Amino acid sequence: MIIPEPPYYAVIFSNQLADGGEGYSETADRMVELAETMPGFLGFETARGDDGFGISVSYWESEASIANWKRQAEHQEAQRRGRAEWYESFTLRVAKVERAYEMKR
Amino acid sequence: MIIPEPPYYAVIFSNQLADGGEGYSETADRMVELAETMPGFLGFETARGDDGFGISVSYWESEASIANWKRQAEHQEAQRRGRAEWYESFTLRVAKVERAYEMKR
Repeated sequence: MIIPEPPYYAVIFSNQLADGGEGYSETADRMVELAETMPGFLGFETARGDDGFGISVSYWESEASIANWKRQAEHQEAQRRGRAEWYESFTLRVAKVERAYEMKR
Repeated sequence: MIIPEPPYYAVIFSNQLADGGEGYSETADRMVELAETMPGFLGFETARGDDGFGISVSYWESEASIANWKRQAEHQEAQRRGRAEWYESFTLRVAKVERAYEMKR
């Protein structure tokens, strides 16, 4: 993931999956594919443990690009299903990344 | 995790564990325990998949509280071991949370 120097924005999405969740992983993959086509998209990372708790972070150039992605029609339908079917709970935070430090072996 | 209304700060730590990693999980648990005693600490969440990629996010009242935690002696030793032994790579980002939205069933 190549991300420019700060400042840019992060959407931190912490979530607990509910039991069941038919169609969740296909939709999650599709949303990443779709987000990558959106203006201002910079990158995405995600991790989920066996307990069903996950954290996904997407990175964006501006608040406007986040608002635009939030309104995207297919994404809106995925948000609706997420609230109704897939998530037991979630917290979504919008944050301005002020500095970043990277370490690679 | 009870967190006040924004603004507050998030430290987003995305990391890939290296193979081996003796002492990692004990130290990781100890660092959470220690962070909870630090002034300005608000909360912590973490997720890691079977591929060893993890995202941990800690929440803080201010940049000063993050700087103070970074300098804590036992944490400094953990940071040193992390770079030398435990992580294949990581990115650490400091971000100001501007808004948050929560959903619970």
